[in-house]
Amino acid sequence: MTATKATTYAPVTEAILGELRALVGAKNVLVDEEKIEAYSHDETDAAEYGHMPEVVVMPATTEHVAAVVKLANREHIPITPRGAGSGLSGGSIPLYGGILMSLEKMNKLIELDVDNMVAVVETGMVTNDLAVYVQERGLFFAGYPMSLQTCAIGGNIAENAGGGKAVKYGVTGRYIQGIELVTPTGDIVQLGGKLSKDVSGYDLKSLVVGSEGTLGIATKAIIKLIGYPTAKADLLVLFKTPREAIDVVPVILSKGLTPTSIEFMDQLSIITSCKYLNESLPYEKAGAMLLIELDGTNAEQIEMDLIAAGQLCQEHGAIEVYVAEDRNNIERIWNVRRNIAEAFKIYSPIQSLEDIVVPISRIPEIIPKLDVLSEKYHVKIPCYGHAGDGNLHATLVKDPAMSMEDWKKNEVACLRELYKITGDLGGKISGEHGIGLKRKKFLKEVIDPVELGLMQAIKKAWDPNNIMNPGKIFDLADA
Amino acid sequence: MTATKATTYAPVTEAILGELRALVGAKNVLVDEEKIEAYSHDETDAAEYGHMPEVVVMPATTEHVAAVVKLANREHIPITPRGAGSGLSGGSIPLYGGILMSLEKMNKLIELDVDNMVAVVETGMVTNDLAVYVQERGLFFAGYPMSLQTCAIGGNIAENAGGGKAVKYGVTGRYIQGIELVTPTGDIVQLGGKLSKDVSGYDLKSLVVGSEGTLGIATKAIIKLIGYPTAKADLLVLFKTPREAIDVVPVILSKGLTPTSIEFMDQLSIITSCKYLNESLPYEKAGAMLLIELDGTNAEQIEMDLIAAGQLCQEHGAIEVYVAEDRNNIERIWNVRRNIAEAFKIYSPIQSLEDIVVPISRIPEIIPKLDVLSEKYHVKIPCYGHAGDGNLHATLVKDPAMSMEDWKKNEVACLRELYKITGDLGGKISGEHGIGLKRKKFLKEVIDPVELGLMQAIKKAWDPNNIMNPGKIFDLADA
Repeated sequence: MTATKATTYAPVTEAILGELRALVGAKNVLVDEEKIEAYSHDETDAAEYGHMPEVVVMPATTEHVAAVVKLANREHIPITPRGAGSGLSGGSIPLYGGILMSLEKMNKLIELDVDNMVAVVETGMVTNDLAVYVQERGLFFAGYPMSLQTCAIGGNIAENAGGGKAVKYGVTGRYIQGIELVTPTGDIVQLGGKLSKDVSGYDLKSLVVGSEGTLGIATKAIIKLIGYPTAKADLLVLFKTPREAIDVVPVILSKGLTPTSIEFMDQLSIITSCKYLNESLPYEKAGAMLLIELDGTNAEQIEMDLIAAGQLCQEHGAIEVYVAEDRNNIERIWNVRRNIAEAFKIYSPIQSLEDIVVPISRIPEIIPKLDVLSEKYHVKIPCYGHAGDGNLHATLVKDPAMSMEDWKKNEVACLRELYKITGDLGGKISGEHGIGLKRKKFLKEVIDPVELGLMQAIKKAWDPNNIMNPGKIFDLADA
Repeated sequence: MTATKATTYAPVTEAILGELRALVGAKNVLVDEEKIEAYSHDETDAAEYGHMPEVVVMPATTEHVAAVVKLANREHIPITPRGAGSGLSGGSIPLYGGILMSLEKMNKLIELDVDNMVAVVETGMVTNDLAVYVQERGLFFAGYPMSLQTCAIGGNIAENAGGGKAVKYGVTGRYIQGIELVTPTGDIVQLGGKLSKDVSGYDLKSLVVGSEGTLGIATKAIIKLIGYPTAKADLLVLFKTPREAIDVVPVILSKGLTPTSIEFMDQLSIITSCKYLNESLPYEKAGAMLLIELDGTNAEQIEMDLIAAGQLCQEHGAIEVYVAEDRNNIERIWNVRRNIAEAFKIYSPIQSLEDIVVPISRIPEIIPKLDVLSEKYHVKIPCYGHAGDGNLHATLVKDPAMSMEDWKKNEVACLRELYKITGDLGGKISGEHGIGLKRKKFLKEVIDPVELGLMQAIKKAWDPNNIMNPGKIFDLADA
């Protein structure tokens, strides 16, 4: 854990604690080091990025949230919102101490409005709780990420989370029709509504989505639902090289087929995950695989699309096409995909899980460059991820034999080079995990200063005292 | 045309004209009253909203645009961007005179990148030119509005245009992956890219979409394409009452069927359009109709979905379900839908074409209230539009016998009441046409001052001299 940084923020005094207890109830204000330690980190490396809050506040209502923000703004105390703490970029870490506001008690479904096909939820709700609830009623929240078992809706909104279904369904933002926002000055405002179109002024809702909690605290969300896709089928397609695998992606998409997912795994990822799971995908001859999922409401339609997709793959260089239509086989294959990160953790628990995004046609150019980086910096870099939208988890994995000092040095240099390569290919450094704390210093190096200035101008205009999740995405000192 | 408003802006002097000619070439700078008159209005009532520019500038490159904006910003001259001038809210009218910047010469397709399924275009390109070009190559720009024959991509972006296909495909913004923006201070910045996901900082691209040219001038756009849907079929469904017609919409959507369109027409709209076209839809018994279109790549799939949708309608109170699968019949029915506004223009050319948007479940509540308003203010209010997304063209039509003075008074009072009702139902005053000039005074009355303040804060931060399309959406004097 890093030392407290010098700031101009006011400390959380006993008087402030008294005010907080009066505002949200004493039991919802935590100061014991033991209890608040869990709020000092997310899923990034705690040793490197973790930082202790001065106090954890657990509001039960939007009015609580607003009252605490007003206090923080008045007193110049930093405030960091947190959903489930499952983030991968340090977005919910209280970098400057101050108030950590956990939304964990605001975790309820407020309304399922079937006529308008929306759910209204408190943003502390665990994404899976919503997904299961609506699925039992034949409905589908299509915007959920891979981590839906643990993540909260608020975090999904903050990072505009993607995931394995984004090729067909898009990312979280497409399903957010409304946000109740507590602004950095403590006002409550309703953005959007139960509406699928709206040009009555600027689209502030879409600005808030993906702003990583720096523009206010989303306390409620109106989430668009669609009909639950009852039919599903998967193809596992083997290719000799990553290039051949990737080249087939636009072919499929341009034929009007819209797979739910087109996941890509390189040989290193497949082998490592298969060994970890004692699984036996036919990886020997395959330099890369695509896992293509189709879903819908009509099994016959899915069948037809599956055949069409399989044929396209065969016409475009696939070595082998396996169809998995039963639940059991589909689960086996997805299990390999899902466990890649975990499998590498067994090899070495120290990793830098990345999520660069490039135009899909450029993915093949990334692969050989990863090999060069891997050799140059003595790190393994398995590559897997969402080929259908160009979002790749090219993950740096520390060699267990390497010293921590060397790893840190090599990690930073390798990431810097990776991000430079990504930018040169027309890509961005994060497709779904966010910049947060972890990628802040790198964003500064690759972003157009004009674009950064426009972002900072909004931040300053909305949060004049810079109390709302400060130090994330960018520092205002850069301005 | 209204008199020039008192402003604090600097006039376009001979010296400025000289500078403009040097920047973009003399032939691209128009000052003749005859020539610039066409740029003084859009598709709103010219007599009420029109205003003459001092000069029309037609840049050929982004660098031209940036140079002119830098000059305007330095000299405090208002600048109004314009695409095709087909807007319905006065967004491209140079309210304060100054420079009208027409993008008409920046109308080229720059690149069709099939591998990444995107087109890169200059924003002055006519939407239909893009649509036709990509369709000939088996691709589809799904975000286009009803007016695609005449409108420009830049206007679609400025208003986040919707249209008849938004139920399935969403509005323009979903297809805008990147924008080249000239900021109000004349900087050129690339937002987004050939990427379908990106959380590398705030989503400025989505903020610019729908901002009606007040946050800068979009000079290029990266547009996501999808496979062209080769199969299409339509249902025309008759209901006794609007309520029964509307009640079936969420039933269809919740079954996982995703029609391209669910268009709604009340009896007054149908009768008027049919009489105008000498057409013979079976409207006598029908208080309302739904026109449901399905599209896709597989005719058999469309057939199955069409049958399913028809059955749902019959189970939920439809009097009659007509299937139109051949091109000729589909065109006949759509022709009735498309000609409603035109038909009422024959009855009376003076109208206020509205595009309120409400949660779809609330549409039936709107209908009887329109009848009350119609009687109270002595205006006809046919109601038709995009039921599948709650966006209704409840259009005030002047009785030819009414004096202009009475019409103006009644129009304003009736709109005010209509917008109030819309807001009370959880709706917004514009779903796809924008606020512009026409709805500015009304937006102020219905919007939460906190939300308005957040918008104004962004505008001030990005456009400190308020030169970029000033006087649209809101006035900064309200701040």
